[in-house]
Amino acid sequence: MANADCVSVRVFSLNCWGIHYLSKHCSQRYQMIGEMLCKEQHDIVLLQEVWSEKDFLYLKAKLASAHPHSHYFKSGVIGSGLAIFAKHRIHDTFLYRYSLNGYPYMAHHGDWFGGKAVGMAILNIAGLTANVYVTHLHAEYSREKDSYLPHRVVQSWELQQFIRHTSTGADVVIVGGDLNMHPQDLGCRLLMSYTGLKDSYIETAKFDGCENGMTLIADNLFIRKNELIPFEKGIRIDYILFKGSSTAKIYCDFMSTTKGSVPGHTLPYSDHEALTAELRLESHIPAQTGSDKTQDTPAEKLAELIDTLTEARTEVKVGLHCAERMRYTAARTGVMGFALLVLELAIAAVPCFALGAEQPFPRISFYLLAALCFTILLTTFLLYIFYTMELKSLQGAEDQMRLAVGSLQEKLRGFPVAQIHDAPQRSPEGQQPSALDPEE
Amino acid sequence: MANADCVSVRVFSLNCWGIHYLSKHCSQRYQMIGEMLCKEQHDIVLLQEVWSEKDFLYLKAKLASAHPHSHYFKSGVIGSGLAIFAKHRIHDTFLYRYSLNGYPYMAHHGDWFGGKAVGMAILNIAGLTANVYVTHLHAEYSREKDSYLPHRVVQSWELQQFIRHTSTGADVVIVGGDLNMHPQDLGCRLLMSYTGLKDSYIETAKFDGCENGMTLIADNLFIRKNELIPFEKGIRIDYILFKGSSTAKIYCDFMSTTKGSVPGHTLPYSDHEALTAELRLESHIPAQTGSDKTQDTPAEKLAELIDTLTEARTEVKVGLHCAERMRYTAARTGVMGFALLVLELAIAAVPCFALGAEQPFPRISFYLLAALCFTILLTTFLLYIFYTMELKSLQGAEDQMRLAVGSLQEKLRGFPVAQIHDAPQRSPEGQQPSALDPEE
Repeated sequence: MANADCVSVRVFSLNCWGIHYLSKHCSQRYQMIGEMLCKEQHDIVLLQEVWSEKDFLYLKAKLASAHPHSHYFKSGVIGSGLAIFAKHRIHDTFLYRYSLNGYPYMAHHGDWFGGKAVGMAILNIAGLTANVYVTHLHAEYSREKDSYLPHRVVQSWELQQFIRHTSTGADVVIVGGDLNMHPQDLGCRLLMSYTGLKDSYIETAKFDGCENGMTLIADNLFIRKNELIPFEKGIRIDYILFKGSSTAKIYCDFMSTTKGSVPGHTLPYSDHEALTAELRLESHIPAQTGSDKTQDTPAEKLAELIDTLTEARTEVKVGLHCAERMRYTAARTGVMGFALLVLELAIAAVPCFALGAEQPFPRISFYLLAALCFTILLTTFLLYIFYTMELKSLQGAEDQMRLAVGSLQEKLRGFPVAQIHDAPQRSPEGQQPSALDPEE
Repeated sequence: MANADCVSVRVFSLNCWGIHYLSKHCSQRYQMIGEMLCKEQHDIVLLQEVWSEKDFLYLKAKLASAHPHSHYFKSGVIGSGLAIFAKHRIHDTFLYRYSLNGYPYMAHHGDWFGGKAVGMAILNIAGLTANVYVTHLHAEYSREKDSYLPHRVVQSWELQQFIRHTSTGADVVIVGGDLNMHPQDLGCRLLMSYTGLKDSYIETAKFDGCENGMTLIADNLFIRKNELIPFEKGIRIDYILFKGSSTAKIYCDFMSTTKGSVPGHTLPYSDHEALTAELRLESHIPAQTGSDKTQDTPAEKLAELIDTLTEARTEVKVGLHCAERMRYTAARTGVMGFALLVLELAIAAVPCFALGAEQPFPRISFYLLAALCFTILLTTFLLYIFYTMELKSLQGAEDQMRLAVGSLQEKLRGFPVAQIHDAPQRSPEGQQPSALDPEE
C-alpha cells in the first residue's frame, strides 16, 4: 500500500451498567444505546457491564447492519460483561482473566462473580493490524479505605503485561474501558508508562464533553451525590487509550463525552458517561515488511487446521453438554434438598401447631436430617457456581474457535480480507456470512 | 550484528514429580537433578511439578553459578509447579492460568489445586529475542474414559492462543513441558498446526533415547505397568517444541531422553523421562529492523517507570501482608472451631463414660453447637484455600515486578544487555547481581 495513507476510526466506549433488576431502566437504556449506535455508526464499539448475554444478543441483532462483526467475552460466574462491535472484520480474539478480583463473600460488591478480564480483538483496518482491547477493572468502593487497591494494582499490572506482550505485531493499539482509576492513580500510571499508551482525552485536538473529561458526574441522575465525595462534580475513570508503532502513527482529532441525560430523552445511557474518540491512523508501512505479519500458510495446511479446529469445537461441545448436565444435576439435587427441608419443617411444625403435643420424630433425627439438608444445599450451591464458571469458559473457547474457523475459511477461500470488511452489504439479513458459522 | 550468525542452545525439560510425602524419594531425586543440571550446564532448564517452593529455592541455590537467572511461576492453591533456570538474562515474564483445570472435588487427582498454567520468559540469546514457554496440562487418568478431555482441549486452545499472540515480536520460540497428550492427540495437533511449532523429536538430526521418544516408560521403576495399558512400552507426552521467524532460523541437531534409572544411581530422576534438545539458532536479522524491538525509552521516562513500579510493588506487598493476616485469622478461627468441637464432644462423652447418666447439656444445644462448629470449620477451610490462592497471585505479581525493575534498572545504567549474560562471573557468590533485587 502507498506510504502515509490516512484513515479515520471512530471508537466508542461505555460502561452500560447492565444489571437487570438492580440497574434502573435497564431495558429502556439498552434500547436507547442500540438506537444511538445504529445512528452513529462508529467503527469500533467497546462495551462493559453487559452482564446479560440476552442484552448482547439484542444489541447484536440491532447493530447487525451497522456493525456486522461482534464478540462477547465470557468468563467467571456471570460473565466478563465485555463486548465488542465492529464495522471491520474481527480476525482473532483472546481473553485474559485477572488473577485477582475481589472476594466471593463480598457478594454485595459482586466483582468476584463478574470474572473481570481484558478482551482482545484483532481487526484489519485499511490494511493495518489493529489490536483492540476492552477491559473493566475492580471497582473502588471507598477512596479513603480502599481494601481492593492491591487487587486493582495487580490487575493494572496484568493488563499492561497482556497489552505489551500481545501487541508486538500490531500496527496500532486501541484500548477502551472502565479502569475504575483516576488519571493519576498508581495503576493508571503503571499502565500508561509501561505500555506507552496515550490518553485520548489528553491528546485530543478538540474536546466536547464534561469538565476535565469526567465520566462519572454528579449531573447524571443515576449517581448518588454522596458516592462521589470528596469529588463534588465527578471523576474520570473511563478511558480510550491508543498507541501507534513504527509502521503506523495515530492521532486523536476529536473526543467527546455524553453529559448526563441524553438530549430528547429523560434518561442518560448509563450511570457512566459514554466516550467517543475520533482517531486518525497514518500508515507508514515499509515496502517489504508489511506483509510479513500474516503467515503465508499453504492451503492444505490451512484445511488441516480447520479440520483440527472443527474437531476441537466438537470436543468442547461434548464438554459443554457434560457440564450442563452436571449443573442440572446439582440444581435438581439442591431443589430436592430444599424440598426435604421444607417437608421436615412442615412435619415438625404441623403437629406442633395443631396439637401442641410432642414432636412427631425424635429430636436427634430431626437435627441430623436438618443438617443433612443444609449440607446438600450448600454443596449443590457451590457446585452450581463452579459448573457455571466451567460452562462460561467452555462457551468462551467455543465462541473463539468458531470465530477462528470463520476467519481461516475466509482465508482459504482466497478472498482478500480487505474486500470483506469494505462490503458489509454481503450480509443483507444482518447476519454474519453463513459460512462463517458452519455449525452454529 | 553479522548476518547468518550461529549459536547453539541446549534446552532441558523435566516433569520433576515433586509431591513431597507422595512422590517417592523426592529429596534424593532433587539432589540428583541439581547435580546433573550443575554438570550439564544447559542454556535453558524448564521444570514442571516443582510443587514446593523450597525445592525451587534449593535448586536456585545449587544452580546459582551455572544458571544465575531463574523464575518460579506462582498460581492456584499449591502453585503452577513451573520453573525456569537460564544462563541468559530473563528480561520479562508473564503467566497465563488456564480457565479450566479439572474439579476441586476430585482432590485425589489434584490438578485443580495446582493452578495449571503456561509461563513465558523473554530471554536475549546472542542478540536474538527468545520467547521461552514452560507448561503442564491436565493429566489423563484414563485413556478410554477421559472425562477431562474437553478441559485439556481448551487448555491446548488457550496455550496456542497465548503462544501465538505473545510471540509476534520474538525471533525464536521455544516451548517445553508435559502436555499430557500423545503426539497425534487432538490438543497436540491443534497446538502444532495453529502455531507452526515443530517437534524436536521429529525434527532432530540425531536422537539418543527411549524408543519412539517415549517419556513415560515401563522401564521406569516409579511407573506401575497397569497405568500404561494399552501402551505396553510407554507413551510420549513430554515435548520440546520450537519455531523460528523471518529474522532467525532454528534447527534441532541432537535430542536425547533419559532411559529410566540414571547410570551410577539406583533411581531415575522422576517418573517422567527428561528431555534434552540441542538447538541451533541462525540469525538473519535485516540491517534495519533488528533494533526496532526494544523501545528506545528516554532515561527520565525509564526512571519514572521504575518509580511507578516500585510504588506498585509496595502496594502489592501491603496486599500480601493483608492476605497473610486474613489467612492467619481464618486458620486461627478454624482451629478454635475445632477445639470447641473437641471440647463439646469431651464434655458430652466424659459424663457418659464416667457416670453413664444424663447428657450434661440439652440435646438441642448440643446439636446446635456441633452444627456451629462444623460451619466454622467448613467456612474457614474455604477461606483458607481462597486466601492461599490470593497470596500466590500477589506473590507472583510481586516476583514479576521485581524482575521487571531489575531489568529496567540494568537498562537505565546503560549496560548493553549482551555484556551482562556473557558475564555470569559478575555474581561470584552465586547470587543475581544485588542491584537487581533492590528491595528483597
